[in-house]
Amino acid sequence: MIGIGPGNPRQITLEAIDAIAACDVFFLLDKGARVQQLSRARTELLAAYAPAGHRVVVIDDPPRDRDPDDYRAEVQRWHTARVDALETAIIESVDAGQSCAFLVWGDPALYDSTLRLVDQLVARGSVDLEVEVIPGVTSASALTAAHGIVAHGIGEPVLLTTGRRLVDAAVEEPANRIVMLDSHLTFTQTARSDDDVYWGANLGTPEQVLISGKVSDVADEIEQARARLRQQTGWVMDIYLLRRR
Amino acid sequence: MIGIGPGNPRQITLEAIDAIAACDVFFLLDKGARVQQLSRARTELLAAYAPAGHRVVVIDDPPRDRDPDDYRAEVQRWHTARVDALETAIIESVDAGQSCAFLVWGDPALYDSTLRLVDQLVARGSVDLEVEVIPGVTSASALTAAHGIVAHGIGEPVLLTTGRRLVDAAVEEPANRIVMLDSHLTFTQTARSDDDVYWGANLGTPEQVLISGKVSDVADEIEQARARLRQQTGWVMDIYLLRRR
Repeated sequence: MIGIGPGNPRQITLEAIDAIAACDVFFLLDKGARVQQLSRARTELLAAYAPAGHRVVVIDDPPRDRDPDDYRAEVQRWHTARVDALETAIIESVDAGQSCAFLVWGDPALYDSTLRLVDQLVARGSVDLEVEVIPGVTSASALTAAHGIVAHGIGEPVLLTTGRRLVDAAVEEPANRIVMLDSHLTFTQTARSDDDVYWGANLGTPEQVLISGKVSDVADEIEQARARLRQQTGWVMDIYLLRRR
Repeated sequence: MIGIGPGNPRQITLEAIDAIAACDVFFLLDKGARVQQLSRARTELLAAYAPAGHRVVVIDDPPRDRDPDDYRAEVQRWHTARVDALETAIIESVDAGQSCAFLVWGDPALYDSTLRLVDQLVARGSVDLEVEVIPGVTSASALTAAHGIVAHGIGEPVLLTTGRRLVDAAVEEPANRIVMLDSHLTFTQTARSDDDVYWGANLGTPEQVLISGKVSDVADEIEQARARLRQQTGWVMDIYLLRRR
């Protein structure tokens, strides 16, 4: 399970490069056109660092209901279907004693389901796997670095969360919140007008866009920039830091 | 401002190596024996990646009251004294047009004051600086990778916080909390006995220690391991994830 950072191919670690060089089979778990550009970047990493004779196996991602009545149940059903697909792929593609890898954007421990599904496969006991995780630079770190800011005031906490959870945000939530997976830009509905927002899209790629300011000043600009990026390239990966004054 | 990852010299990014190779002067801001071993690791990074003819300038860190009545005021007073020291060092050591760098453990945006003090120096206007931040792998990512875990349940938030703040923790706080800068191991006083804890010390170094389990089962073991490491080497850098069931 190799974290390869948030998008800039120079934001990979030496440890991740070492791990890529030591693997025989690489799995790509992909879902349609949206991530074709990201897949291309991973293919370039393999061309640069994977050993001669390595194999790349694409695992077709099972379909998923993006707006289910029961979010947790649907995610779990979808994970089980993904574990089935992974199990088949490993049995068919990896010989005993070989090493296989997933290249995971950002860090494998944050808002990526690959490690969870590998754990489910290990729990089945149907294949004998030894799992190693290589940490990567998170998109949260890429965001704060691109804006040149510290994530928090002196000694303050930082909440990493998703757009879905931001809807529930209580007044007492931490002053600093980094929000991922929020295609609805939920802060435009829930933030105070004088909160500060630091937004970044397609971080570390040639299409990187950064916008920051008071929510009331920049919310429209962010919505327009996001829509434009999505129209131009068919996909957008974005993240933002909200800070209460 | 170059993030160099949490301790394993292979957990540096190619981008950080590029940045080190492009700098003329490297500042070390260090405080006594506790960080001598960490300074040695940074010196090895410079030997490997810095250009021929580079200079290393040690900035003696001003003294700090670690247990003040007014925490924020003391931190701010100490930061001002550090800005004075940095200003003097830059004026004396860096020529016009040259690049200078700080190598920051982990990521510069999280619980490290170097970027904040550089911002204060820029605000003074006494030296003309253009600041660039290179993100690094966080100790939080190194912790979860070493334990082979995802930081959160499906879609759940994660709170990054400090031992000082854990004391105030409300019952409603997120189920997943990653705690840094906690030499008192506050969770042994505040956590529920059936919370899970994933603790790691000196991550990525030959002295790495990992302990995990229910708080009631492993709290004593963690306290003993931390005391032992501190006695053996004079310092310990640790971090833990607390998870409510």
